[in-house]
Amino acid sequence: MKELKAKWIAADWGTTHMRAWAINEQGKVLAYSESNEGMKDLQQNEFEPVLLRLIESWLDSEKVTPVMACGMVGARQGWVETPYLKAPCVPIDKNQLTVATTKDTRIQVTLVPGVMQHNPADIMRGEETQIAGFIKENPGFDGIVCLPGTHTKWVNVKAGQIEKFKTFMTGELFGVISNETLIKHSISTKGWDQDSFKKGVLQGFKSPGTIASDLFSLRAESIVNELDFDAAKSTLSGLLLGLELNGVQDYWKDRDVTIIGSELLSNNYQQGLNILGGECKPFDLETATLSGLTSAYMELHSD
Amino acid sequence: MKELKAKWIAADWGTTHMRAWAINEQGKVLAYSESNEGMKDLQQNEFEPVLLRLIESWLDSEKVTPVMACGMVGARQGWVETPYLKAPCVPIDKNQLTVATTKDTRIQVTLVPGVMQHNPADIMRGEETQIAGFIKENPGFDGIVCLPGTHTKWVNVKAGQIEKFKTFMTGELFGVISNETLIKHSISTKGWDQDSFKKGVLQGFKSPGTIASDLFSLRAESIVNELDFDAAKSTLSGLLLGLELNGVQDYWKDRDVTIIGSELLSNNYQQGLNILGGECKPFDLETATLSGLTSAYMELHSD
Repeated sequence: MKELKAKWIAADWGTTHMRAWAINEQGKVLAYSESNEGMKDLQQNEFEPVLLRLIESWLDSEKVTPVMACGMVGARQGWVETPYLKAPCVPIDKNQLTVATTKDTRIQVTLVPGVMQHNPADIMRGEETQIAGFIKENPGFDGIVCLPGTHTKWVNVKAGQIEKFKTFMTGELFGVISNETLIKHSISTKGWDQDSFKKGVLQGFKSPGTIASDLFSLRAESIVNELDFDAAKSTLSGLLLGLELNGVQDYWKDRDVTIIGSELLSNNYQQGLNILGGECKPFDLETATLSGLTSAYMELHSD
Repeated sequence: MKELKAKWIAADWGTTHMRAWAINEQGKVLAYSESNEGMKDLQQNEFEPVLLRLIESWLDSEKVTPVMACGMVGARQGWVETPYLKAPCVPIDKNQLTVATTKDTRIQVTLVPGVMQHNPADIMRGEETQIAGFIKENPGFDGIVCLPGTHTKWVNVKAGQIEKFKTFMTGELFGVISNETLIKHSISTKGWDQDSFKKGVLQGFKSPGTIASDLFSLRAESIVNELDFDAAKSTLSGLLLGLELNGVQDYWKDRDVTIIGSELLSNNYQQGLNILGGECKPFDLETATLSGLTSAYMELHSD
């Protein structure tokens, strides 16, 4: 059985989800586990028991297994607050890793801090690890990394550093507009209409100032012209993406753009950029996360 | 006691509130009553009992008292659905008023229909009555009427008609962003900071495409630079108003603009316009509503 124990454990612990990987001596993933026990649902003293329940079978009772974690677990409301690095900076600095004290002596938990920017004020927690992983796989990369999500990050990467970045809360806006405004009566939860998405992207990009009117139009169109619910949802998605792509043009126009995110979101962003004459390449999210956490682990254990 | 009975009753029945006025022979308001039993909280058979509870003391048991009502009470989910007038049109057409059947023979309830626009699709219910009232008090008006609210209406009025209009769901966005996104952790519910409001208006107007980033910045500023909660709330209000004023420039630039709304909202819109070099005049909301309902009543009872 000893061969199945983890050399170390990688963890990505965000606001709504926790994912953990058992890694062996050769850096290979032996096992994977996940939970919807995100940071927002946990009290400070609940992080250790939740972690142990997920990874206990990977531990060797005779030694200490390192756990390297990134994400909102290091926020003020998380397990232990990790002070932000200040951009411009390397995404992971081995001298700025934070240890989370544990009662169980079989694990030693280290957290990767997030990155802040003073002016304009901005913050990230978790994406810096994916950027570190991407840079490790693409040394010398000079360009833009876009990490779509609830709070999409556009990051200017140069000489191995996060130069500057900009966050758009487009995903969160999509959520509250879909679920909490009068538009909820006019859109589907699933379904897709590609033409409507495209029209939305073009309209949001062309006319960002009318977004609050274009959103109301989705409801009005459903009443006046019986707009299809799938079309309304796809238009909404396109409008908000087009709006963002208008506001973030200096990050993607004539730049080398890589997108790191879930397949669905990466696909939307790639299509949105293509509709507007932009280009980008996808990079696998899990590869980026694991490679970044491996970097952090290796730096800490290279001495 | 007979002198205290109403000749007729005016009612403004919206999504969240109901207001009623007892009017005498000379058109003077004798009494006022209101309730938070808005359309959204009522089943179809609950409208009559709610109305009766509010106005019963104004009724004369020996005759029929007319009730003239406007607003969402005439929506599909309301008391009885009134078919929309189609813009361009007069705001109130006496041949298009709808009777709501009642069990109680002491009242005769008539509803003012809303107005729709086919292309671009848009709808209003209630504002047409305020516009009718405003036109009655300002015959020959040729210009723009702005009715700020959850769904702000910008209406082009010409020769006594609603020519075209545009709705911005700015108020509803302010609500969900304040209450349902991560920004709720960084803003006050009361309080005000005028400089922040002004900066927000200018930023929202100048850079509409970055709204989803400027919103996230409120959270980031509070974490990175300890932005004051009142300042964050006022900035949010300014950003969303500036965004709207960018998108609706063709309605207010070099036009005669009248604002009809609550004192707080009218004041915000007036200030926002002034910050951007625009001008407007306020017109009293209750005067507009009562004058509009009086128009409808008089037209129906002039034969």
